[in-house]
This record gives sequence, structure tokens and C-alpha cells, in this order.
Amino acid sequence: MKEFAKTELTEKTVSSRSVFRGHLLDIYDDEVLLPNGQTSKREYNRHVGAVCVVPITAEGNVIMERQYRYPVGEVLLEIPAGKLNAREEDREEAIRRELCEETGVVAGTLVDLGWFYPAAAYSDEKITMYLAKDLSYGERALDEDEFLNVEEIPLSELVRAALSGELHDAKTQMAILRAYLFEKGEGR
Amino acid sequence: MKEFAKTELTEKTVSSRSVFRGHLLDIYDDEVLLPNGQTSKREYNRHVGAVCVVPITAEGNVIMERQYRYPVGEVLLEIPAGKLNAREEDREEAIRRELCEETGVVAGTLVDLGWFYPAAAYSDEKITMYLAKDLSYGERALDEDEFLNVEEIPLSELVRAALSGELHDAKTQMAILRAYLFEKGEGR
Repeated sequence: MKEFAKTELTEKTVSSRSVFRGHLLDIYDDEVLLPNGQTSKREYNRHVGAVCVVPITAEGNVIMERQYRYPVGEVLLEIPAGKLNAREEDREEAIRRELCEETGVVAGTLVDLGWFYPAAAYSDEKITMYLAKDLSYGERALDEDEFLNVEEIPLSELVRAALSGELHDAKTQMAILRAYLFEKGEGR
Repeated sequence: MKEFAKTELTEKTVSSRSVFRGHLLDIYDDEVLLPNGQTSKREYNRHVGAVCVVPITAEGNVIMERQYRYPVGEVLLEIPAGKLNAREEDREEAIRRELCEETGVVAGTLVDLGWFYPAAAYSDEKITMYLAKDLSYGERALDEDEFLNVEEIPLSELVRAALSGELHDAKTQMAILRAYLFEKGEGR
């Protein structure tokens, strides 16, 4: 089987064209030079980056949200999350802000649970995951067009839901399993 | 704290507009009616759906791929995956096809590991995960503009990599952890 060297896999930008710039999406259609010298098209979204958090209470419950996601037409059970204000924004500051705005919860301790590219084939979005502990309660301040419900669910119940297919949102499924493995001592 | 009923969270389509239709992306900009009676915009990608697979050899190794992902500018270590040919395509047939085309591996047994929406805020893509066992070897048949390397890595090594932050691709990180928990008897 033919193996390519790492540099032989790389694609180089020939030209880059903005095809849609909205409030949320920023879509480009680039022409690239393939490893074999031919050209191809690459369509993708430029994203500022995001953060999400598993906020665990002293009783072992997670503060969760239920939110309607228009693209999939479902109310999803999700952990609190939000976009960065800018690519260079401090991610811990961003998650403290989003958690407080959406749920009124103030994180005492934050633990980094890693990050991932949700859709590397067509978006440069990077999502960083945190575990939040030592929670206290402040003032909720939702954005004008945000509608979501907040509830507490035991972590053990969410792990069962993740494994039995009841958590449909990628970052939620991932961060819940990471938090579970971390709490068991397997994630460090 | 105000709680919304499930129906009160739903957004209704007022109008839908196609703003970019490429080879890969199919972008819409819809106007929606919010629960409070006001309107807002929702931008999203319509996706046919995808499948991915953790193919495990009798020795406990996983058949992995290294592939350049232009949007993020990195060579990513990923499990085999691919888009469906159509929304209604049988997902088991699709993953057998993609696995064979990309790696030359023929899956004997497939186990469903669940599914997720990678980016429900701006794409309706749904990715279904499988575990493949009882592997045999056929003929590799890459698409013309596909360049990727194939290698075998022990599952235990990949679980360590997932937890220490070395696997950057969402579906890979998720499916490896799901496969690990399934093999330990926690995922059923």
C-alpha cells in the first residue's frame, strides 16, 4: 500500500474566496493544490472557537440546559457552552462568562478536559471542554434571542444517557464521558 | 428562574433562503419566529449524514488514517469515515463501503456505537459510529482527490491519546472512548 510522507499529504492554497458572510457563518470556497499537483476545491466555515463546561455540584449533579437547535429541529439536552468573543480570548474567562450568563452559576475551580475539532472537514471550529466545581450562584443574563431551560441531572445518569444514545449533541456526549473518566481517575 | 415548556422553546420557519450551494456545503439563511414572537436569523449547512468506524483487528489494533484537513491546516489521525450517498442510504452498507474504499479492509461484524450531531448550532449533520470486528482484506479504492495514510495502532494507545489530548478529531475521540467503554462492558 502506498504511504505518503506527512508533507506529501499537505494541500496548498491557490486562491481563497468569501462566498457567504452572515452573523454566524463565514463561508469560503478555496482552490487548493493537491499532493499530486492537481487542483481541487475546499469549502469551509471560519469559526472563532468555542468553550463548553460540565458544572458539577457538591451533590454530583450537572447543571444542564435544554435548547432548541433549529438546524436539527430538536430540543437538545446540552452542557453550557458558548462562542469566544475573539480568537485570542482567554478560554477560561470565556467559559466563566458563558456559564454565568446562561445559568447564573459561578465556577470556583475549572479543570481542562481537552479540546476537539467538531467538523474538521468543513469548519475550523475548536471546542475546549472544562469541568467546573466549587460552584456558587450569581445572576443569569441570557442574550435577547436565547431561550433555554436549566436543570440539574446526576452525572451517573448522564453517563448512562451518553452510552445509551440519549445525548445527541457532540460536545455534551464527549465532555460527559471525559468528566466521568476524569472523576474515575482515568483522565489525567 | 423562568422555565420554558418544550413547545415554548421551538422556533418556526418564516422563510428559507439558499445562500451557497457548493460541492460539499449547502448553506441556508432562514428567518425564524422565536418563542417570544420576535424574529431572528438562523444560518446553517444541510448535510446528507456520515458514518465512521473503529475497525479492531484480532490483535487489538485499530486501523487508523492520517489525512490532511484543509480547514484546520493539520494532518489529523482519524478513524475511517465517509459521507452517505443519500440521506436514506443504509448506514451499515455505507460504512462497509467507506472502510473498504479507504483502507481495503472488509468488516465481518459491525456493532452500533451510537450517533451524534457534531455541530447542531449550524449543521444538521448526523454521524453514526460503529465498531468493526472479524476483519479481512480486500482492495483499496481511494477517490481521485483523496490522499491518506493507513496504519495500525493499539486501542489502548489510542484511549491514552484521546484522554491526553492527542486526538483532535471529534468523531475519532468519541468513537475511540465509546469503543473502549463498550469493550469493557460499560457501553451496552
